[in-house]
Amino acid sequence: MHVVVNAAMSADGKLSSRQRDQIAISGEADFARVDRLRADSDAVVVGVGTVLADDPHLTVKDEQLCQQRLERGDPEQPARVVVDSKGRTPDDAAILDDAATTYVCLSEAAPIDRRMELADRAELVTAGDDRVALLRAFATLQEQGLEQVMVEGGGELIFSLFEAGLVDELRVFVGPKVIGGRDAPTLADGDGFIDEFPLLSLERVERLDDGVLLCWTVDS
Amino acid sequence: MHVVVNAAMSADGKLSSRQRDQIAISGEADFARVDRLRADSDAVVVGVGTVLADDPHLTVKDEQLCQQRLERGDPEQPARVVVDSKGRTPDDAAILDDAATTYVCLSEAAPIDRRMELADRAELVTAGDDRVALLRAFATLQEQGLEQVMVEGGGELIFSLFEAGLVDELRVFVGPKVIGGRDAPTLADGDGFIDEFPLLSLERVERLDDGVLLCWTVDS
Ligand SMILES: NC(=O)c1ccc[n+]([C@@H]2O[C@H](COP(=O)([O-])OP(=O)(O)OC[C@H]3O[C@@H](n4cnc5c(N)ncnc54)[C@H](OP(=O)(O)O)[C@@H]3O)[C@@H](O)[C@H]2O)c1
Ligand SMILES: NC(=O)c1ccc[n+]([C@@H]2O[C@H](COP(=O)([O-])OP(=O)(O)OC[C@H]3O[C@@H](n4cnc5c(N)ncnc54)[C@H](OP(=O)(O)O)[C@@H]3O)[C@@H](O)[C@H]2O)c1
Repeated sequence: MHVVVNAAMSADGKLSSRQRDQIAISGEADFARVDRLRADSDAVVVGVGTVLADDPHLTVKDEQLCQQRLERGDPEQPARVVVDSKGRTPDDAAILDDAATTYVCLSEAAPIDRRMELADRAELVTAGDDRVALLRAFATLQEQGLEQVMVEGGGELIFSLFEAGLVDELRVFVGPKVIGGRDAPTLADGDGFIDEFPLLSLERVERLDDGVLLCWTVDS
Repeated sequence: MHVVVNAAMSADGKLSSRQRDQIAISGEADFARVDRLRADSDAVVVGVGTVLADDPHLTVKDEQLCQQRLERGDPEQPARVVVDSKGRTPDDAAILDDAATTYVCLSEAAPIDRRMELADRAELVTAGDDRVALLRAFATLQEQGLEQVMVEGGGELIFSLFEAGLVDELRVFVGPKVIGGRDAPTLADGDGFIDEFPLLSLERVERLDDGVLLCWTVDS
């Protein structure tokens, strides 16, 4: 499995404002890049915090890219994955529509009624007691044939993936805005590291829209 | 007055770990760049949070740069400034030694005994009731002839300076590390903006050490 984390952050490292409002950070060129990255992936993953804040659809928008997927024998759309310990993904979440296969990764703490509702709309993967055990959940996804995996946030999930050693690449668009806020979501939240920080290598720097795209690989 | 904010952040926008430990983010080339920037400045400013966490000296290290300052009629070292509402800067802080002139910007809330102790070691500027009123404090510094001002952090002070509309340029070294942590200091903390985000223009992108230097100007 190859895991690429992709996100857009403000010049000061924020994914959104302290009110968790979605903020336009990038532009057309970056949207097109993200669409291509989705089209090159078997699955697009987000945390339930992002589903609740933004209700994203996570599909490939460009029809030509969908066509190319079909031509090479892939499903028209990559699978969508929510990491959601307690099954808080709303039944009417955009991610649960029938545009693509959706996996909901739950923990044992997900109530039975939520499981039953979600089972009608998605494939369920259970791993972990209180929180989703990411190594096990991702191993199950891999067994389902999901090899190229893209993670679109948010900061809590991204931190946990780094902690679990699951990230191979980090691609960050840095946009021309200051959001600020000690409580605003950042690219990597969670408890944070206090030593043995994951180390990166800078593979590519590219000006895009009014900001810059930084492509890092994670040193092993 | 021209205000340049300079800082080093991790790839995820953190200035240090949640324990506020100083983390090596940049390298030799960036240190040399910061030293040149200090040498080109009339004053180097930090918040008292940075003094308490890191006890920085804030002097120009390269003797040749000091010599050049003297040759052009400037003091050997730029002035140092601490923004410190309650006079919490310790008497033995490195920033209070006699290597350079130091200004401590206080508010009316600074106790009289702290004022008296600090007055022996620094020039005092008082502005604001509970917190330092930055517009007034910076106006006073300007009256003292401090025109080229560099701010070295931390995130609380940097946010307030953006809020006050005092920042002209932002230079950020982005280093090859993930620090993470919802409570770790970021490049701009404070309450954060929820709209009317300060907008930036990307002037320069330069690979440096194992990271990248982003130079932004603040749109007016
Ligand atoms: N700019 C961008 O590119 C971008 C991209 C995405 C999101 N965002 C923003 O980011 C914010 C949401 O981010 P977020 O950090 O709050 O949420 P998130 O990372 O999307 O989701 C975090 C949630 O996932 C669940 N989870 C389950 N197992 C987990 C594990 N092992 N590790 C971590 N999380 C686990 C937890 O909720 P349970 O305990 O209930 O399961 C956790 O609270 C929104 O404001 C959104 O707008 C921005
Ligand atoms: N990587 C880097 O380049 C870099 C650079 C600098 C610092 N750092 C790190 O940043 C951390 C310290 O940053 P910080 O954000 O905690 O502290 P800070 O910004 O250095 O100082 C903030 C303090 O300044 C005082 N202050 C007075 N008036 C203010 C105003 N109007 N607005 C804002 N602050 C005002 C406040 O304390 P009072 O109310 O007591 O006055 C406030 O808590 C440390 O962990 C340090 O290692 C990293």
